[in-house]
Amino acid sequence: MTTSGMITLKLDLGERAYPIHIGTDLLTQEALFAPHVRGTHAVIVTNTTVAPLYAERVAATLQRLGKQVVTAVLPDGEAHKNWQTLNLIFDELLGAQADRKATLIAVGGGVVGDMTGFAAACYMRGVPFVQVPTTLLAQVDSSVGGKTGINHPLGKNMIGAFWQPSAVLADIGTLSTLPDRELAAGLAEVIKHGAIADEKYFAWIEANIEALNARDTAALTYAVQRSCEIKAQVVASDEREQGLRATLNFGHTFGHAIEAGLGYGEWLHGEAVGCGMVMAADLSARLGFIDAAFVPRIKALIAAAKLPVTGPDLGEDRYIDLMHVDKKAEGGDIRFVLLNRLGQAFMTRVPDAELRATLRANV
Amino acid sequence: MTTSGMITLKLDLGERAYPIHIGTDLLTQEALFAPHVRGTHAVIVTNTTVAPLYAERVAATLQRLGKQVVTAVLPDGEAHKNWQTLNLIFDELLGAQADRKATLIAVGGGVVGDMTGFAAACYMRGVPFVQVPTTLLAQVDSSVGGKTGINHPLGKNMIGAFWQPSAVLADIGTLSTLPDRELAAGLAEVIKHGAIADEKYFAWIEANIEALNARDTAALTYAVQRSCEIKAQVVASDEREQGLRATLNFGHTFGHAIEAGLGYGEWLHGEAVGCGMVMAADLSARLGFIDAAFVPRIKALIAAAKLPVTGPDLGEDRYIDLMHVDKKAEGGDIRFVLLNRLGQAFMTRVPDAELRATLRANV
Repeated sequence: MTTSGMITLKLDLGERAYPIHIGTDLLTQEALFAPHVRGTHAVIVTNTTVAPLYAERVAATLQRLGKQVVTAVLPDGEAHKNWQTLNLIFDELLGAQADRKATLIAVGGGVVGDMTGFAAACYMRGVPFVQVPTTLLAQVDSSVGGKTGINHPLGKNMIGAFWQPSAVLADIGTLSTLPDRELAAGLAEVIKHGAIADEKYFAWIEANIEALNARDTAALTYAVQRSCEIKAQVVASDEREQGLRATLNFGHTFGHAIEAGLGYGEWLHGEAVGCGMVMAADLSARLGFIDAAFVPRIKALIAAAKLPVTGPDLGEDRYIDLMHVDKKAEGGDIRFVLLNRLGQAFMTRVPDAELRATLRANV
Repeated sequence: MTTSGMITLKLDLGERAYPIHIGTDLLTQEALFAPHVRGTHAVIVTNTTVAPLYAERVAATLQRLGKQVVTAVLPDGEAHKNWQTLNLIFDELLGAQADRKATLIAVGGGVVGDMTGFAAACYMRGVPFVQVPTTLLAQVDSSVGGKTGINHPLGKNMIGAFWQPSAVLADIGTLSTLPDRELAAGLAEVIKHGAIADEKYFAWIEANIEALNARDTAALTYAVQRSCEIKAQVVASDEREQGLRATLNFGHTFGHAIEAGLGYGEWLHGEAVGCGMVMAADLSARLGFIDAAFVPRIKALIAAAKLPVTGPDLGEDRYIDLMHVDKKAEGGDIRFVLLNRLGQAFMTRVPDAELRATLRANV
């Protein structure tokens, strides 16, 4: 068993606290799964892309623990993050006569993790699940914090639940098979964590962006660790997003409008968020919150991470309509996460004129 | 405002505690809704049968509170308790651009309440809802306790959540429009509460069954009150059904098999539970737990409530298969709620031979 260099963080949520293990060669270690897979049934949920790479390895580990293992293989991609696909998981669970002690194991990226978590939240009114994120985006962001759900044609993640995993196993080795475009999408959330919470981390990302692009294991391990630390701290202080947690949506109001406007799956979530952060920084500067010099700085970093920095031309009105239906809209007003300064985010309503000016300047 | 004779119970669940108001003419009282409907949007969920009777009255009350009211009218019946119907609620919410502060109001029976609660649990990862049960079954049982969900072709309530309402408004007046068959279905759960928890209440039901059948307001009010007291006490001590709460499933393992075997909606849930209680009492006596004299006693009461006492002939093996997939099965074993004595229930595994004997004796 290789545990050399494994880092374990803890997400402190009282009785729902759980460990986040970060390292290499984690998928073959029974000891990491054993405390979290208690019943007779383990149901692996993965997709057509990840299944041939890692699902068999996880299944073998669970079989060595004596579990009855079945695997639900979903179609790959954000476009399939809907009820129909979710129902494939329920079909598998019920077909296997999985009971309330069954554990779901999400092996894949953010879409697989979000759907597995939501299936676990709903199956027999709630069963445990374990996150085994295999994309950078899932390792640094979506696998941690218990937000689960599916999309609706009228909005992203509109249907879901807060349902915490029993453990997160982030195996850095799985990033070796990640397509370049998905690596970049994960870096968007890495950059976001620096921007909203930690100026020094942001500077570290700037200094190490080439190592991250080149998938240097040490650089990726540090990024996953530091991002998980930031996310865990925010989630622990505000699990159900009453306040602080909403700052993790920096860039997401614009980003969700891009995703919905183009149709889910056209741009990756991280690509839309990358571009959305440029817009949110622009708006922050335009309203006098952050120094204008920060806008080209974050734009340069996002470009260096090989992410788009200019939004698709959906038309101003369409952008605004799409943002109105986004779930961050409360009481009819759109609220934006903006930056006061590098490392500090807050939520505010914004005047229509400046919002439109930002859209004009960045599409 | 008529509050004469209104009874208010409290379901004590810490920060999720809520009131259960029982009385007549509750639907027109703004003061009962006001503390629980905080945002700008109130979304009434009802069905094609109940909408013309009571939805307009509730909508008018909410409009007097200044709410934007929209109404989702679902097809009526257990056969529609599925994802497709649930999605009609989401369509209505998103079409109205309802935000996270929106409140859902369930106006109808158990199916409407279960689906509204599940929609509330899932919409934007959770919004509040109010139960306005208009059937006896919903008033004495399903509206209290926070079990929500939908059916899957392979099992009843397989997909759902624990999500507590903000309040329950049980208006006894709405029972005047209830079809006889549904009144009887509600009495099944009333009888169940006596059987599992309160010998004196069981005797009261026996003595008052004709008054209940005749919809005597005082008798119905007492039944709703006493049943809600029993249910609230059980739920408060075991919200997520780790133990005691499971005793509320007395008659349900047999009942769910009947419902699933015939196809949901063929028998009403209460009818299946009524018959299921005869089977569960028979099995309790057959295994020596309860005096054999109790079996004809409960059978007579269930018959007096105009409920079926003989199960459909699905075949023994089919009954057993259906019970295996029922969610009370844990680790592959079927566990039954049986009676030790009148007023005291417990869970146990049972030998196959006695289970088969019970099925042979009661179909």
